[in-house]
Amino acid sequence: MSILVINGPNLNLLGVREPGIYGAATLADVEASVTEQGERAGHSVECFQSNHEGAIVDRIHATAADGTRFVIINPGAFTHTSVAIRDAFAAVGVPFCEVHISNVHKREEFRRHSYLSDVAVGVLAGFGVRGYNLAMAFVIEQLAGDA
Amino acid sequence: MSILVINGPNLNLLGVREPGIYGAATLADVEASVTEQGERAGHSVECFQSNHEGAIVDRIHATAADGTRFVIINPGAFTHTSVAIRDAFAAVGVPFCEVHISNVHKREEFRRHSYLSDVAVGVLAGFGVRGYNLAMAFVIEQLAGDA
Amino acid sequence: MSILVINGPNLNLLGVREPGIYGAATLADVEASVTEQGERAGHSVECFQSNHEGAIVDRIHATAADGTRFVIINPGAFTHTSVAIRDAFAAVGVPFCEVHISNVHKREEFRRHSYLSDVAVGVLAGFGVRGYNLAMAFVIEQLAGDA
Amino acid sequence: MSILVINGPNLNLLGVREPGIYGAATLADVEASVTEQGERAGHSVECFQSNHEGAIVDRIHATAADGTRFVIINPGAFTHTSVAIRDAFAAVGVPFCEVHISNVHKREEFRRHSYLSDVAVGVLAGFGVRGYNLAMAFVIEQLAGDA
Amino acid sequence: MSILVINGPNLNLLGVREPGIYGAATLADVEASVTEQGERAGHSVECFQSNHEGAIVDRIHATAADGTRFVIINPGAFTHTSVAIRDAFAAVGVPFCEVHISNVHKREEFRRHSYLSDVAVGVLAGFGVRGYNLAMAFVIEQLAGDA
Amino acid sequence: MSILVINGPNLNLLGVREPGIYGAATLADVEASVTEQGERAGHSVECFQSNHEGAIVDRIHATAADGTRFVIINPGAFTHTSVAIRDAFAAVGVPFCEVHISNVHKREEFRRHSYLSDVAVGVLAGFGVRGYNLAMAFVIEQLAGDA
Amino acid sequence: MSILVINGPNLNLLGVREPGIYGAATLADVEASVTEQGERAGHSVECFQSNHEGAIVDRIHATAADGTRFVIINPGAFTHTSVAIRDAFAAVGVPFCEVHISNVHKREEFRRHSYLSDVAVGVLAGFGVRGYNLAMAFVIEQLAGDA
Amino acid sequence: MSILVINGPNLNLLGVREPGIYGAATLADVEASVTEQGERAGHSVECFQSNHEGAIVDRIHATAADGTRFVIINPGAFTHTSVAIRDAFAAVGVPFCEVHISNVHKREEFRRHSYLSDVAVGVLAGFGVRGYNLAMAFVIEQLAGDA
Amino acid sequence: MSILVINGPNLNLLGVREPGIYGAATLADVEASVTEQGERAGHSVECFQSNHEGAIVDRIHATAADGTRFVIINPGAFTHTSVAIRDAFAAVGVPFCEVHISNVHKREEFRRHSYLSDVAVGVLAGFGVRGYNLAMAFVIEQLAGDA
Amino acid sequence: MSILVINGPNLNLLGVREPGIYGAATLADVEASVTEQGERAGHSVECFQSNHEGAIVDRIHATAADGTRFVIINPGAFTHTSVAIRDAFAAVGVPFCEVHISNVHKREEFRRHSYLSDVAVGVLAGFGVRGYNLAMAFVIEQLAGDA
Amino acid sequence: MSILVINGPNLNLLGVREPGIYGAATLADVEASVTEQGERAGHSVECFQSNHEGAIVDRIHATAADGTRFVIINPGAFTHTSVAIRDAFAAVGVPFCEVHISNVHKREEFRRHSYLSDVAVGVLAGFGVRGYNLAMAFVIEQLAGDA
Amino acid sequence: MSILVINGPNLNLLGVREPGIYGAATLADVEASVTEQGERAGHSVECFQSNHEGAIVDRIHATAADGTRFVIINPGAFTHTSVAIRDAFAAVGVPFCEVHISNVHKREEFRRHSYLSDVAVGVLAGFGVRGYNLAMAFVIEQLAGDA
Repeated sequence: MSILVINGPNLNLLGVREPGIYGAATLADVEASVTEQGERAGHSVECFQSNHEGAIVDRIHATAADGTRFVIINPGAFTHTSVAIRDAFAAVGVPFCEVHISNVHKREEFRRHSYLSDVAVGVLAGFGVRGYNLAMAFVIEQLAGDA
Repeated sequence: MSILVINGPNLNLLGVREPGIYGAATLADVEASVTEQGERAGHSVECFQSNHEGAIVDRIHATAADGTRFVIINPGAFTHTSVAIRDAFAAVGVPFCEVHISNVHKREEFRRHSYLSDVAVGVLAGFGVRGYNLAMAFVIEQLAGDA
Repeated sequence: MSILVINGPNLNLLGVREPGIYGAATLADVEASVTEQGERAGHSVECFQSNHEGAIVDRIHATAADGTRFVIINPGAFTHTSVAIRDAFAAVGVPFCEVHISNVHKREEFRRHSYLSDVAVGVLAGFGVRGYNLAMAFVIEQLAGDA
Repeated sequence: MSILVINGPNLNLLGVREPGIYGAATLADVEASVTEQGERAGHSVECFQSNHEGAIVDRIHATAADGTRFVIINPGAFTHTSVAIRDAFAAVGVPFCEVHISNVHKREEFRRHSYLSDVAVGVLAGFGVRGYNLAMAFVIEQLAGDA
Repeated sequence: MSILVINGPNLNLLGVREPGIYGAATLADVEASVTEQGERAGHSVECFQSNHEGAIVDRIHATAADGTRFVIINPGAFTHTSVAIRDAFAAVGVPFCEVHISNVHKREEFRRHSYLSDVAVGVLAGFGVRGYNLAMAFVIEQLAGDA
Repeated sequence: MSILVINGPNLNLLGVREPGIYGAATLADVEASVTEQGERAGHSVECFQSNHEGAIVDRIHATAADGTRFVIINPGAFTHTSVAIRDAFAAVGVPFCEVHISNVHKREEFRRHSYLSDVAVGVLAGFGVRGYNLAMAFVIEQLAGDA
Repeated sequence: MSILVINGPNLNLLGVREPGIYGAATLADVEASVTEQGERAGHSVECFQSNHEGAIVDRIHATAADGTRFVIINPGAFTHTSVAIRDAFAAVGVPFCEVHISNVHKREEFRRHSYLSDVAVGVLAGFGVRGYNLAMAFVIEQLAGDA
Repeated sequence: MSILVINGPNLNLLGVREPGIYGAATLADVEASVTEQGERAGHSVECFQSNHEGAIVDRIHATAADGTRFVIINPGAFTHTSVAIRDAFAAVGVPFCEVHISNVHKREEFRRHSYLSDVAVGVLAGFGVRGYNLAMAFVIEQLAGDA
Repeated sequence: MSILVINGPNLNLLGVREPGIYGAATLADVEASVTEQGERAGHSVECFQSNHEGAIVDRIHATAADGTRFVIINPGAFTHTSVAIRDAFAAVGVPFCEVHISNVHKREEFRRHSYLSDVAVGVLAGFGVRGYNLAMAFVIEQLAGDA
Repeated sequence: MSILVINGPNLNLLGVREPGIYGAATLADVEASVTEQGERAGHSVECFQSNHEGAIVDRIHATAADGTRFVIINPGAFTHTSVAIRDAFAAVGVPFCEVHISNVHKREEFRRHSYLSDVAVGVLAGFGVRGYNLAMAFVIEQLAGDA
Repeated sequence: MSILVINGPNLNLLGVREPGIYGAATLADVEASVTEQGERAGHSVECFQSNHEGAIVDRIHATAADGTRFVIINPGAFTHTSVAIRDAFAAVGVPFCEVHISNVHKREEFRRHSYLSDVAVGVLAGFGVRGYNLAMAFVIEQLAGDA
Repeated sequence: MSILVINGPNLNLLGVREPGIYGAATLADVEASVTEQGERAGHSVECFQSNHEGAIVDRIHATAADGTRFVIINPGAFTHTSVAIRDAFAAVGVPFCEVHISNVHKREEFRRHSYLSDVAVGVLAGFGVRGYNLAMAFVIEQLAGDA
C-alpha cells in the first residue's frame, strides 16, 4: 500500500528558510526520514513538493488512480488560502493528515484558520520536522488496521 | 461569434467527484452538451478547464485577441479565493456568467462569498449541470440581441 | 402538473420601476411569457403577485392542496427580510427556484443575504426578465424527469 | 526524568462517553499505554485526571517541585474556557503538548479556540487515543535531546 | 548589485487594461523606464511578470542565489490573496518595496488588506506608473547606503 | 378575566408542517387544549392565528379594549423579524409569554435572536406543544396572584 | 399640489402608547395639525396609517397616479425591517422625508439602523410630534421652489 | 423512576440574593416544592446544589449509575461559561431541561448565550421559581410517555 | 432668553465648499437667517464657528454663565470623532439640537455614527441649510413652552 | 470593621511565577503588607487565596455573615472567565475593588475584558504589588467616611 | 524632582459637572491636594488643564526639557480619541499613570477603550478624586526607588 | 507654482522622537531637503507643522487663496482620528499626497486605517524621511504635466 507526502509552497527551502522557526533539517532530510519509516512498515512512499497550487491539486487527483491510501500534507501557505486543495481531497476521497512544522497558533492571526483541518483526519502543529514522523506512525497504524 | 466555457479546479473530476453533490455527468458530457447547444445557434464554442489559477487568467487574457464574445465560467474553488480572475475579466472587458452546479448557499459558509459575482452579468447556482445550458441559452439570446 | 410563479413586493411595477435596473418588460409581459412556455410543455401555470408577505405565505400554503409541483419565486424585498416565507416553503415542502431580475451582488450590501437561497433548489440573478424563462426551462425539465 | 499526563473534565468517562466520537478505549487503557511507552524509554510517568479546574491548576503547580520535565495534557472542555490553566503553565514554566482525541475542527465552532495552543510546544487533534502515544513519542525524543 | 522588479497577475495587460485606472503606459514601457533608471545608477535590473502565483514564488526563491539585493513588486491581485508570496520573501530574506499603480484605498474594500505590507520595507500606491520609479529611486539610495 | 393565545405565521399548518420538528398535534388540538385548561381555571380564552404581521399587530391593539389580561404568543417566524409586534405589546402594555414548540437553539443561527424575548415576562422553547400548557399554567397562577 | 403623510405600525395608538416616550397628542391631532399647515400653504394633504407593510407599499404605489408630490413618513417599526417600503419609494420615485417622534438614537441599538434614511431627502428624530410640522414646513418650501 | 434537580453557583442564596430579581423563595422552598410535585407523580426526586463546576460535572456523571431518567438544571452563571457541563450531559446522555428564574434576555448581553441550550430538551426563563415546577410538570409527562 | 448656534470645522467655507453637497448659501447667510428668525421670536441669538475642537468645548462651557437656554449645533466632522464635545454638553447640561446640512446617511459609512445624537434632544439631516431654520423653529417653540 | 483580601488562581506562586511580569514579592509578603496597613487603621484584615473558582464563590458568600465591609480582589485568570464570582458579589452586595499587578492592557487581547470591572467600585492595574496597598488606602478612607 | 499632573477636556468643570458621577470637589481642590502630597514628599508638582488636544501634546513635549520625571494624566474624553497624546508620550519617553475619576467600565461602551492604557505604567478608575492621590502615592514611591 | 508641506502632531520632535522608528534627521533637516528639491524645480515651497488639528484645518483652508497647487502631508496621529482634515481637503479641493515615515502596517492595528488615504492622490509609508522626497519628486512631475 502507498502513502503520499505532499509539501506546499516554500517548503523546498526547509533548512534554509527561517531556521529559527523551522529548524535545520532540509526537505530532502525530511523526505528521506519519512520514506524510510514508511518503507520499513512495508509501504511505498512517494514525496511531492510544489509551490504551485494547481500542481498540488493535480497531484491529489492522481491519487485516484495510483493506489495511494493515505496522504500526509504540509500545505504551507495554502493552508490558509486554498479552497481548491480542500475540494481536491473531497473529490478523490483520499484520507489525509495535516502537518505544520511550527506551532501556527503562536504566529500571525491569519495562520489560525485552515481550509483543510475540518476535512482532515488529524492535524498536528509545533512538533518540528518530527511532526511528519508522528503523522507517518499514525498512518502506518491506520493502514495496518484497515488491512 | 465565439463563446468560451471555462471550468475551474476539480471540475475535471465531474461525474467522479462527490456524485451526491454534483451528479453523474462528466465534464466531457457537459462540454459536449453546451457546445452542441451553442453551435446549433451558430456560434463557435470553446471549452477550457484548468486547476491552475494562472492558466485561467492567461486564458481569459487570450479572449482579447480570439474573438470571444461571452464567457460562461464555473470558477469552482477559485470563486472564493481569486482576485486575479476577477481582475482578468475587468482587464479584457469580456462579459461573463457565473455558474455553480450545486447550490452553494446550502454548503459551507465560506462558499457564500464570490469574488466574481458583482462583476458578472448573471449568476446561477443549484441547477446541476443544466445550469451550463441555462447560461448558454441566455448568452445565445444576448448575442442575438447584439448582432 | 402545475407550476406556480410568485412575484413579491413592487414587482407589480415592473417595466415602470427603475427601468435602468429592471428593464422595460411589464409584469404582465413576463407572466404571459412564462405561462406560454410552461403550457407549451403541457403544464398549467398560475401567476401570483402581492406586496403583502402574509398573502404570499397564504398562497404558498395553498399549494399543498392545489396540485402545484414547483414554484418559481422572485421574492423581491422579502428575500432579505422574510423568515415567514422561508418557513412556508418548508411547511408545505414544495420545491422552488429563486429568481432575481437584477444582479443583486452589484447592489446594496444587504441584498447579498437571502432567507430563501439555502432552502431553494436553485438561485439565479442578473439575467433580467429572461431569468424567469431560464428557471421555467429548468422546472419543465425537472418535472419531465419526475414524471 | 518524569512525565505527567493530565486529562481534563469528562475524560474519566472515556470509552463510555460518546464512543462514536472518542472510541472504545477507556482512560485506564490509555494511561496504561502511555505509561508503558514512557517507562520503556526510562521515564517515570504519572497520570492525573480531574473534572475540577482548580485541581488541575494545583497539579500543574506541583510539577515545580516533583521533577516533572514535560506535561502531556488533554484539557477537554477546559481548552476553551480556562485562562487559569494557561497561567499555571506559564507560572511554573513546564513545557507541554496539547492533545485532543477527536478532530475539534470538525465540531462546534467554539471548539476551534484554545486558551492553551499558543503557549504549548505542540498541538495535535483527531488521531484518536493514539494521539497520546504520538505526543509521548515526541516528548521522549525531546527529553533524550535534552539529556 | 542587482535589483528585481516583479509584476503580478494581469499587469502584462498594462496600458490595455482599464486605462481609466492604470494609465496608457505598457508594461514594456514601465520596465524599460525602471531598468534605465537602475542601470544609470550602476545596478543590473531584471524584470519578471507572471499570472501564476507559483511562478512568482519560484522567482523570489531564485534571488537567494542570483545576487538580487532588493525587490520591487507590484503583486497585483496576489496582494490580497497570497500568503505563499509573503512566506517566500520571509524565506529568502530579501528586502522589498510594494508598489500599486492605482490608489487601492479608493477601490473595493477587499483591496485594503495586503498580505505583504507588514513585511515590506515600504509601500506606495496611487502614483500611477511613476510609483515604480519612486520605489527605484529609494532602492538605489538604500543600496548606496549599504555599499 | 381573559387570556389571548396568538399563533404566528405557518402555525395554521401545525401537525402537517414538518412533523419531525413540530409533532403531530394540529393547531385546533392545541387551541382546544389550552382553552379547556384556561376555562377550567375560570378564565375565558380566545385563540387567534394569522400569517399577516399587521393582523397580529391589530389583534394586540384590540386587547386594550377587550379585557385581555395576559397573552400567550408563539410568534413563529415573526420572532426574528418583527419590531412592529414588539412595539404593539409595548403600546398596549399587556404582559405576554413567548412560546416556541421546537428548541430554537438547535436550529439555524438566525433563530437565536428574538425581538420579543427581552420585553416578554417569560420565554420557553423545546417543550413541544405542551409548551402552550406550561405557559397557560403560569398565566393562570399569575392572574390568581393578581386577583 | 398634493402631500401625503404616512404613519406606520402602532402610530394609530399615538397619545395612548407610551406617552412618556411619544407625548399626549393623538394621531388625529397630528394629522389635523399637518393638514391645516399644508392647506394653509395651498396644498392638499392626505393622511394614511396602517399596521400592514403591504398596505403602505400599495399606498406608496398609488402616489404614481394621484399627483402626490412629496411624502412625509413616520415608518415606525418598519424603519428597521422593511426593504419593501424602501423599494416602493425607489419604484415610484417620489421624494420623502423620514420623521421619528422620539430620538431613536437614545433607544435600543436596533433602532439606529433605518432602511429608508439613505434614500430619503431628509431625516429628523426627537422633536416630538412637532417633527411632522418641521418636515411639512420643509416640504412646503421645497414645493414652492419647484413650482 | 428518578429525577435530579441541579442548581448551580449562587443559587444557595436564593431568597437572599437580589430578591428584586429572583424573588423571596429560598432554595429549600423550591426544592421542597419540586420534590413534592415529583413524588406525587410517583418519582423519586433528588436535589443538588454546588458553586463548584467540577462538583456538578461529577454529579452528572453519577446519573449514569443511579437511575436518573431526567435532569432539571438551573446552571446559573455556568450557563455562560461551562463547556464541561455541556460535555458531561453529552457523555452520560441523560436528557435535561434548562431553567432560569429571571428573564435572562432582559439582563446583560453576555447572559444571552448558553453553552447548554442547544443540547437541552427545552429551555425556559423568566417564570420565577415557578419555572422549576413548569419543567417538572413537563418531565413527569415525558416520563409517563416513556413508561 | 438666549440661543447659541455653533458650527464646527469647515463650515466657515459654506457656499464655497462642495456646493453640490452643501448648496450656495454662505455661513454668513445662514447665521443671518437664523438670527433674524430667533430675534423675531424675542430671543437673542449668538453664532459661533470654529475649526478647533477645544474652542467649541470652551464655548459650550461658557453657556453655563451667559444665559444660553438652547444650542443648535452642526458639529461637522466632530460629529464622528469628538467625545469631548459630548462631555461638554453633559457637563453644562444645556439642551441642544444636532443639525446636518447634507443627508449623512447617503455618504461614507463612518458618517453614520454620531457621538452626540443619543444625548441630543433632536437630530435632523438632509434638509440643506433650511435645517437650521427647522431646528430654530423647534427651539423657539420649546422655549415658549418653558417660559 | 473587617476587610477581606482575595487572590485568585496562580497568585499563590507570586514571587516565583514570571517575576519579569509580577516582581519578586511573594504572596505572603503582600498579605503581610496589606494586613499591617489595614490593622494600623484599626481594621481586621483577612486574606484568602484559592485556585478554585467555587472556593472563591463560597468565600464571598461567607462575607454575608462574617462582618466583612469591603473586599479587595485580584481575581487573576478568573477576571476573564468567571460569571459566578461576579454573581457572588451581586448576591451578597459587598463592595469590592479589583486589583491587577501587571498592566493587563499591555498583554493578550483577552485580558482586556473583565467580568468584574463594571460591578466593582474601582479598578487598578499595572502598579505592581503596590496596587494592593493603593486599594487598601482607598478602602480605609471609604470605611472611615462610612463610620 | 518634578511631577506633572495633566487634566484633559471638561475637567475644568470638576465639582460643577455631573456631581452625581464626579463628586463635589473642584479641580482646584484636587490640584491643591495632589500638589501638597507631592511637595510633602519633596517633589515639585505642576498642574495643567486644557480642553485642547494640541495644548496637551505641547505640554507633554515640554517635559523633555523641564525636568519632569513622571506624569499623572486624566485624559478625559481624549482617552478614547487621541492618538496624538499617545504618540506624544512615546516621543518624549516620560512615564505616566492614567487616572479616571468615575468607573469607566460602568458607562458607555466606547469608554472602555483607551488609546493610552497599553503605554501607561498603571491605570486606575472609579476611586473618585482620591484616585489622583493614589496615583501620586505610587509615583512618589517610584521616584524614591529611582533616586 | 507653490507646494505646501504639512507635518502633523509630534513631528516637531523628529530626530528626537523614537529614532529607532523615525531616524535621526530633524524636521528642520527634512523641510530644508524638500524645500531645496522643490525650489530647484522652480516651485516655491512652504512648510507647516502643528500639533493642533484645528490649525492644520485652518492652514489647508488658506491654500484656497495662496496659490498652493499641491500639498504633501504627513498627518501623524491625525491620520487615524481626523475627519476634519479629510473634510478640509475636500472643501478646498487641493490635491495631496499622504506620507508616513515608518511602515504603519508593521505597527499597531489602529494605524492601518487612515481617514485620508481614499481621498489622497497617492500614499506612501516606510521609506523613512526620504518618503517626503519621493512625494516631492512625484508632485514636481505632476505640476510639470499640468503646466
